[in-house]
Amino acid sequence: MEIRVLKNVLDKNMNQAEKNRQTLMKYGIKMVNFISSPGAGKTTLLEKTIPALQETRKVGVIEGDAYTSKDAERLQQFNIPIVQINTEGTCHLDSYSIENAFAELDLKKLDLILVENVGNLICPTAFDLGEDFRVAVLSATEGDDKPAKYPMLFRQAKAVVLNKTDLLPYINFDNEAFTKDLKNINPNLPVFETSATLGTGFAGWLEWLKEALEKEVKRV
Amino acid sequence: MEIRVLKNVLDKNMNQAEKNRQTLMKYGIKMVNFISSPGAGKTTLLEKTIPALQETRKVGVIEGDAYTSKDAERLQQFNIPIVQINTEGTCHLDSYSIENAFAELDLKKLDLILVENVGNLICPTAFDLGEDFRVAVLSATEGDDKPAKYPMLFRQAKAVVLNKTDLLPYINFDNEAFTKDLKNINPNLPVFETSATLGTGFAGWLEWLKEALEKEVKRV
Repeated sequence: MEIRVLKNVLDKNMNQAEKNRQTLMKYGIKMVNFISSPGAGKTTLLEKTIPALQETRKVGVIEGDAYTSKDAERLQQFNIPIVQINTEGTCHLDSYSIENAFAELDLKKLDLILVENVGNLICPTAFDLGEDFRVAVLSATEGDDKPAKYPMLFRQAKAVVLNKTDLLPYINFDNEAFTKDLKNINPNLPVFETSATLGTGFAGWLEWLKEALEKEVKRV
Repeated sequence: MEIRVLKNVLDKNMNQAEKNRQTLMKYGIKMVNFISSPGAGKTTLLEKTIPALQETRKVGVIEGDAYTSKDAERLQQFNIPIVQINTEGTCHLDSYSIENAFAELDLKKLDLILVENVGNLICPTAFDLGEDFRVAVLSATEGDDKPAKYPMLFRQAKAVVLNKTDLLPYINFDNEAFTKDLKNINPNLPVFETSATLGTGFAGWLEWLKEALEKEVKRV
């Protein structure tokens, strides 16, 4: 019975996600969904990513958090439209919350929406938002065993950003085991090693992201 | 409608949690529920905690993971009963999964069950398992803003273990902001700073835990 209810919720979510995709297509907007554990560095990644994308694109952000608007406040420096969604007891964004966020944005003035999902490696993977693709962000400090323990995300993601790599000298992170597990789950998944502290790895990530955004089917 | 369904699920969970509590009481067993993000160090904490508790208690473990039995395998060195629950697409343990785990354990031979919940700061807080109390584990690398962003866990927890403190010199962690947010949410919550790498902080944590287990109402 519970499973039927869940299926119902996911079916309705998928229908709304399809409507979101139609909306994005209509306005020629790409949307990327960033998923990670709490505190893996999604907001820092956006801080490093937005200025580079702003050169050629009109960027908006949808921020998902259980509580607070701390992340949205950190991104206000870029003078871009940001919608904060507080999910409270819910551990993921769904396509309905994205539809509500669309209503708060002037979609005519955007061509890219970056979605920062609620910090959680499981449920966000079950909820299609209508995005073009997903990016998995993992902090090296979470450990090399995360792809094996949370395969859904790494199976769906179009890229992995392995963040906080400046801490690798101080932790046990078996890069060989990590890479092997990732290859089993998703053989051609690119991995970008970044560190906000060292300022490294962002060039490769940004080059890939720009190319990925170009590669997607034109939607005008 | 979706909210009513959720209420139903939570009501049923609470009824089963009450039955679990009766079972634990019947056998004179205490149960502690460890909740954290993925990769915060719950299993390492258990590795450091179990040997100290084994001196005076018969300990069993219930391991919650979406996939794999990696954590359970790490704890096999202690020669204690361990039940692995794989929740797959579900991001938390519920009281029914605990009832199933009880059936796999010889409860007559235990007086303490440590539950390692699925890595997630949100949903596990909504599901009573029938435990005596909850412990929040936070990796310092997740950032000082986690109590404000995930207040439910820190409101419910009887203690916080702030782990990976050996990395504090290399990260931005505002201990003052962290402490202030925690005080707003739960004024008398004890915080234990631990580091598996340095081997520090465990004495205080273990002393507190043993005392907390003694203090609870006797249930024989």
